[in-house]
Amino acid sequence: MQDWVDRIRQGERRKVARAISWIENGDERREPLLKALFPYTGKACLIGVTGAPGAGKSTLVDELVSQARKRGKKVGVIAVDPTSPFTGGALLGDRVRMTRHALDAGVYIRSMGTRGHLGGLARAAKEATRVLDAAGMDVIFIETVGVGQSEIDIMHLADTVALVLTPGSGDAVQVFKAGIMETADLFVINKADMDGTKKLVHDVEEMLHLAKSEASWHPPICETISKDGRGMEELWTELTSHLAYLKESGEWETRRFARLRREVQEIMGEELSRRLQEHVKDPAFQRDLDEVQAREQVPHEVARRWLARLAVEGGDTP
Amino acid sequence: MQDWVDRIRQGERRKVARAISWIENGDERREPLLKALFPYTGKACLIGVTGAPGAGKSTLVDELVSQARKRGKKVGVIAVDPTSPFTGGALLGDRVRMTRHALDAGVYIRSMGTRGHLGGLARAAKEATRVLDAAGMDVIFIETVGVGQSEIDIMHLADTVALVLTPGSGDAVQVFKAGIMETADLFVINKADMDGTKKLVHDVEEMLHLAKSEASWHPPICETISKDGRGMEELWTELTSHLAYLKESGEWETRRFARLRREVQEIMGEELSRRLQEHVKDPAFQRDLDEVQAREQVPHEVARRWLARLAVEGGDTP
Repeated sequence: MQDWVDRIRQGERRKVARAISWIENGDERREPLLKALFPYTGKACLIGVTGAPGAGKSTLVDELVSQARKRGKKVGVIAVDPTSPFTGGALLGDRVRMTRHALDAGVYIRSMGTRGHLGGLARAAKEATRVLDAAGMDVIFIETVGVGQSEIDIMHLADTVALVLTPGSGDAVQVFKAGIMETADLFVINKADMDGTKKLVHDVEEMLHLAKSEASWHPPICETISKDGRGMEELWTELTSHLAYLKESGEWETRRFARLRREVQEIMGEELSRRLQEHVKDPAFQRDLDEVQAREQVPHEVARRWLARLAVEGGDTP
Repeated sequence: MQDWVDRIRQGERRKVARAISWIENGDERREPLLKALFPYTGKACLIGVTGAPGAGKSTLVDELVSQARKRGKKVGVIAVDPTSPFTGGALLGDRVRMTRHALDAGVYIRSMGTRGHLGGLARAAKEATRVLDAAGMDVIFIETVGVGQSEIDIMHLADTVALVLTPGSGDAVQVFKAGIMETADLFVINKADMDGTKKLVHDVEEMLHLAKSEASWHPPICETISKDGRGMEELWTELTSHLAYLKESGEWETRRFARLRREVQEIMGEELSRRLQEHVKDPAFQRDLDEVQAREQVPHEVARRWLARLAVEGGDTP
């Protein structure tokens, strides 16, 4: 495993790719590897980019990758499509992008679909960012489509979340309804050469005013035209301002702490389910259930006893 | 608590009502009471009745209650509406029925909405049937609206499930798509005086043929007109045939065993979540998280250790 850790830390692309595949397929080497990589993580900035399909997120992320590269930063991209069963670079948009950045050793792009994923897509995406983090990426973009619950879960992985809207799409209303306001640190009005840009900017300002957040960060609204790169310098500046704000205000630590706590809690739930599955056929468990069936035992007590048993038994296995 | 158990077992209506309210509100007396009642449960037959809104389920269940009463059986009804926040007899349909059976001491009707319910509506409905079971009801109808996942969960509580369809509603196709076929032991074509009855019966037969179940029970299709009571004797007969089949084939025991196993597993998951919530502010947990934040510990190991700790600690509390 040490060899894998070393080569991933040196940024060896094929090892990085394999590691992410292990995560996707629930390979048995996944957990030991993540454990060995963990001490080398926590350095990269994670930037989430989300928005409705067709908002131009991929092109936008592409431009942001170029911005980061101009500044000499190594960049990772995890493109997550919760509606797609495809994975591992199989998305069309991904191939197009691969071509653009193909010769740049400082960029690693990976798409993930819904296939497999022990513990869900958000978990897999999080673990993939850990691999890229350990591989020395300075900035990692997590791109996802839509504004549903799974997208919100994925955005919870990021330090900074940019929400991409386009004029005339009615996005603003939808975003307001979905309660996604709280998730966005930054609004991007992409395709800002289209009719309705002014109205959309106004609607978002209105929304932000209504939300009356007490936080000291007031989300900026950036106008961009990703297809010809306009507004990208400004967007990059706003992103870095937000990261600076996070670090100065202490939010950086607070958010990351909350995220780790949530992660630990999720792992506990998953561990329990996994061990339960293993014990369903255990004769002792069957016997207890027989006694419940015969009304000699009560479900709650059997549940408590097995909870204790499963929790302790599996506690020290590698 | 013994006084409550005695009075519920004697069928005292006000105690039964209070007990179900405890279940709904997550009252602290809920668990000790259910534990004390448990030895006196397992005797009642549970009949689930589900179908789309407007299929005439309430009237149908009303008629079935009359059928059961004619045969001297004590009857309970739990009417669950997963789409309604109302509870405790607040549904309009329920009041109408209450009037009809109000003077009959052998009938207890209770509706439950989505409010509160530690562990979900299906759990609350199951616990309510336990109270009615201990109160000496011979037959308990569990009525629910719709064919979504929560309805399927609720139907899993029943020994026998009757699925109610109406002509011309396109129900058959929907049911087929929703994968609810496996859940139904019996099909009721209600409002069988309407156009399209023949076609619906044919569609259901076709569906059953396609499903090619290997079970020895072939679900019958009953035509009823619940508003004037037609077909009710026949439906009652089919229901009792299915119960007889369950007992003869051994399915009765098998199903109830599987249900108890699922219940024990669910309680384990709920217990763990509950204990986790209590420990979120524990200084020792905070310290571990701090060390994860500092990369001195790995999330998986902290999760495993706390899983063991929470499981054991809470294991013997009352």
